[in-house]
Amino acid sequence: MLYLIGLGLGDATDITVKGLQAVKSCSRVYLEAYTSILTVGKEALEEYYGKQLILADRDLVEQGADEILKDADVTDVAFLVVGDPFGATTHSDLVLRAVNAGIPYKVIHNASIMNALGCCGLQLYNFGETVSVVFWTETWRPESFYDKICKNRAAGLHTLCLLDIKVKEQSIENMMRGKKIYEPPRFMTVSQAADQLIQIIQRRRKEGGELGVTEDTVCVGLARLGADDQVIRTGMLRQLVTCDLGGPLHSLVVTARLHPLEVDMLRVNAEPDALQHLRMIDSSTYTS
Amino acid sequence: MLYLIGLGLGDATDITVKGLQAVKSCSRVYLEAYTSILTVGKEALEEYYGKQLILADRDLVEQGADEILKDADVTDVAFLVVGDPFGATTHSDLVLRAVNAGIPYKVIHNASIMNALGCCGLQLYNFGETVSVVFWTETWRPESFYDKICKNRAAGLHTLCLLDIKVKEQSIENMMRGKKIYEPPRFMTVSQAADQLIQIIQRRRKEGGELGVTEDTVCVGLARLGADDQVIRTGMLRQLVTCDLGGPLHSLVVTARLHPLEVDMLRVNAEPDALQHLRMIDSSTYTS
Repeated sequence: MLYLIGLGLGDATDITVKGLQAVKSCSRVYLEAYTSILTVGKEALEEYYGKQLILADRDLVEQGADEILKDADVTDVAFLVVGDPFGATTHSDLVLRAVNAGIPYKVIHNASIMNALGCCGLQLYNFGETVSVVFWTETWRPESFYDKICKNRAAGLHTLCLLDIKVKEQSIENMMRGKKIYEPPRFMTVSQAADQLIQIIQRRRKEGGELGVTEDTVCVGLARLGADDQVIRTGMLRQLVTCDLGGPLHSLVVTARLHPLEVDMLRVNAEPDALQHLRMIDSSTYTS
Repeated sequence: MLYLIGLGLGDATDITVKGLQAVKSCSRVYLEAYTSILTVGKEALEEYYGKQLILADRDLVEQGADEILKDADVTDVAFLVVGDPFGATTHSDLVLRAVNAGIPYKVIHNASIMNALGCCGLQLYNFGETVSVVFWTETWRPESFYDKICKNRAAGLHTLCLLDIKVKEQSIENMMRGKKIYEPPRFMTVSQAADQLIQIIQRRRKEGGELGVTEDTVCVGLARLGADDQVIRTGMLRQLVTCDLGGPLHSLVVTARLHPLEVDMLRVNAEPDALQHLRMIDSSTYTS
């Protein structure tokens, strides 16, 4: 049996009881280590589970799936994923390989950013399409996420922005030389995402384009959601550029039309200025 | 401290280790019992936790919140919610009352239908606005969910349809007589939801309206997601009208443009006819 087990968000104790029982019963346990991270590392999980973990980087999952699935028809193998196994990143490919090899699989779900963000007070069914914000480079500055956010917003829907993670990336130089030397991991912060958004807004304003999201749009910065030191910060987009929400992972929400109950919840964690802004939002201007 | 603890989907062991530790430490434990259910009842949870649970129906949560929060500034109180506390139904109101009373609160997240549905193979970030499908009555047959599904679909986005739950409802007669007699609980099935959708399609076809979703649209029926006996059934909408996916809870997904990897995953649980239909979907017709 192949178990795909969600670890939830936070630390080692965020695994479900069912998930923990499965981990303990497996002969090999892989930890997916390139799409997300917990606030604790591999060693803390190993100590908590009483099991050695095999780190599964992108290469292993995408090219070494046979190794992961080896003997899984006669023994139990666990594949651990931060959040839910089918959260922001799906592991459909691994599942399909198991199915094709006649290996039964079982998913043990857990919270992921896709549903846990509800604790900021915005209602999950008022969210539109989720977008990804990638690190810009000097030559690659995609803006399509801005258009998707505006489209959601025009339809009265909030947008969850998943922020880029670069783990085990090679510099172009090292890649061309075939050197397996990796850059330090990078995790986009709420501040960096807000900055990229504002650069798009400023560029489009100069060009006279229509702006569905501006520097004054109410946004929510989320950091380490589900961990004991999680931070939720509500502010106008321009306020979030200068915020420091601490270590990874961060996510950003761009709000749309707000229900009065959502406004009340957002106020709980609002910046002073944004608080004033939110106070001015009354049911006639912002709600349906 | 007020703990809002998600129980996940399935049975008693789907609680997180962190959640279980919190439950055991609390002096009073409420079980929210009107927006969702597990496959096991209150007694099984009580036995598993070694704690008595107080059932919290809608009346208690909406009108008796003071009772729930009583002494929560000096003792620990848990409020258990199937899925995630901020999943399909938010409990913002209870949180705001706690905040206003100076009672600290902590959320312990878990899987909910909002993210666990990813296991059917459809990618979560390709979903648009979530809709609710309510039981029609003779005089009340809302169709707005159909329009929202079509709007999502036109934008290339899948739609999760949450299906109606009627727990502790009074008949109009008993309500008017002030009799606290409740009807047996009702949970909308995938079959019933598909039937209502098809009635809308047929009515609109007669009127010559444009149809964004038809009887041939590929849909996914989900039953008891996360439980050992979960069922995922992919078929055309008309096939799901006659399907019997067993006991509650059910949800329905209406698909839009499909990515080849999504098609491959849907095939794993497809009806024979739908399988053929999915085989015909090639990347030129269905994908972006």
